[in-house]
Amino acid sequence: MALTERALIERYFRDVGARRSDVPLGVGDDAALIEVPPGMQLVAALDTLVSGVHFLPHFPASSAGHRALAVNLSDIAAMGAQPAWALLGLTLPDVDEAWLEGFTSGLGALARKHNVALVGGDMTSGPLCITVQMLGYAPKPPAMLRSGGLPGDVLFVSGTPGDAAAGLALEKGELTGLTADAAAWLRGRFLYPTPRIELGIKLREYASACIDVSDGLLGDAGKLAEASRCGVVIEFEHVPVSSHLVSAVGDARARELALTGGDDYELCFAVRPERVDRLTRELPPEQWNYRRIGVLRSEPGSVVIRGGTVMDVSHSGFDHFAR
Amino acid sequence: MALTERALIERYFRDVGARRSDVPLGVGDDAALIEVPPGMQLVAALDTLVSGVHFLPHFPASSAGHRALAVNLSDIAAMGAQPAWALLGLTLPDVDEAWLEGFTSGLGALARKHNVALVGGDMTSGPLCITVQMLGYAPKPPAMLRSGGLPGDVLFVSGTPGDAAAGLALEKGELTGLTADAAAWLRGRFLYPTPRIELGIKLREYASACIDVSDGLLGDAGKLAEASRCGVVIEFEHVPVSSHLVSAVGDARARELALTGGDDYELCFAVRPERVDRLTRELPPEQWNYRRIGVLRSEPGSVVIRGGTVMDVSHSGFDHFAR
Repeated sequence: MALTERALIERYFRDVGARRSDVPLGVGDDAALIEVPPGMQLVAALDTLVSGVHFLPHFPASSAGHRALAVNLSDIAAMGAQPAWALLGLTLPDVDEAWLEGFTSGLGALARKHNVALVGGDMTSGPLCITVQMLGYAPKPPAMLRSGGLPGDVLFVSGTPGDAAAGLALEKGELTGLTADAAAWLRGRFLYPTPRIELGIKLREYASACIDVSDGLLGDAGKLAEASRCGVVIEFEHVPVSSHLVSAVGDARARELALTGGDDYELCFAVRPERVDRLTRELPPEQWNYRRIGVLRSEPGSVVIRGGTVMDVSHSGFDHFAR
Repeated sequence: MALTERALIERYFRDVGARRSDVPLGVGDDAALIEVPPGMQLVAALDTLVSGVHFLPHFPASSAGHRALAVNLSDIAAMGAQPAWALLGLTLPDVDEAWLEGFTSGLGALARKHNVALVGGDMTSGPLCITVQMLGYAPKPPAMLRSGGLPGDVLFVSGTPGDAAAGLALEKGELTGLTADAAAWLRGRFLYPTPRIELGIKLREYASACIDVSDGLLGDAGKLAEASRCGVVIEFEHVPVSSHLVSAVGDARARELALTGGDDYELCFAVRPERVDRLTRELPPEQWNYRRIGVLRSEPGSVVIRGGTVMDVSHSGFDHFAR
């Protein structure tokens, strides 16, 4: 017998996230009630993952659950905010309980890790489509917008972008011949990205501007620069890449993937030159896993420098409607 | 040339809702920033409309925009809350600018009517699917949950349920032979439902429990009763129906549709017997458009009484997974 929407919610979603004392009313009424901590601003993001676009049906269900939450956590991280509450819109072609088990295990583990309560949502039948709406909070005034950069600010990126693009290629069977270690690392980086929540919160004290890297580092750095009415210069040799990515595709292709791949969910941030010493002393890069990749400048546009000359970069990021 | 996601957002969504001074940062960064009024609880709801499930491709685009917002406003109304901010997840198979024009005109008009700002969201390619996340606020402590009813409470419903189900049947070509007036009324009630925001806010002072009627009055009244650990008795002859619905399908079928149809977005609410006089004096039913339909009782289950005897009602509401 088919389970009703209500039975599915009871079985899979009521207790999937963290329990929080600031949720007087969660799943089960017409809307959820939330107590935002006094003096804090509410921070709200919403992202959708569509089967066939953002993941393929044969990818693990736990990855779909993890990523649906992670992409939103990453947006919250880019604001330097503390994530706290989420709502889930889930459209399913049929009731596949094995898929739901995997999906909620992936979503639930990441939610509990970041103390995020699932407070509500909606399940309907239809093509497989996952929308998560994430709420968090941050002190006023806002510290890290995209628009806070100035010419001369030093640009950094966290983690090793490009891994996820290679991991996606692996999942699609478009990349082969890797060592087992490299393949496991790269697949993991696509299937289970790590939103940089803790780094984002720390960066509030240092960064002038921040963006989450979801559509390719070069394009997203360009968006930060444009919002700040600047241009950006990125040094090709300084773009961080993982040894596994280099072993899989070679050094130059690795850095190209790091610049133009997608699905990284790292943070790209700008820091006033006079604050860089304090940043690197108080948040050691080797411990916090970030690297200097370039600078903002007054001349508009995005430029990549390699061996002292400007590279021709034709792919400037991922856009769902312009491919 | 295809418009990019960013160009689409600039053209269609940046200014579609109300402008509010409590939104320091809206569309265009990684997340939106919102100032929740001090002392208020945040109220959050999320609902998804899927093409082919909740509407058909030939229905007016402005109706899709209106309904995507209205179904969420109705959830906020059922909490007695003030709606304020929304996020939109829109998945589109292709860039159809005529559709987008209609969609945003329908969504925008209703948003501005209720002073709701569109603060963020996500557009992706994929099957047509619309998720709106609505945020509002209400004074503490919460006044109108589903669970606040007691045996003896009098049950009311707003508006004329059943109209929308007939309107949907008209849109699908399953109902014919109506007068032009009746057809226009019923179609309008399905395509452009009226969320009962003002009534919901007023009811905070009178109602012990409230639910929005989206899946059929009988089923939703039963959910309110169950959440309140009660049963419910509804008097068939007291179920309000519009003259247009009666002219279209006859009196008995009209009341059946009112009990078991869907998509009404009316409020069903319970009031302690000793408060009923004050309610009807201070919020005159003929002005506020609601009617007494039954009572809560201690015996569980939902019962409809017609001419003094219990009716057999086989359809107890709409469930997306149990049909």
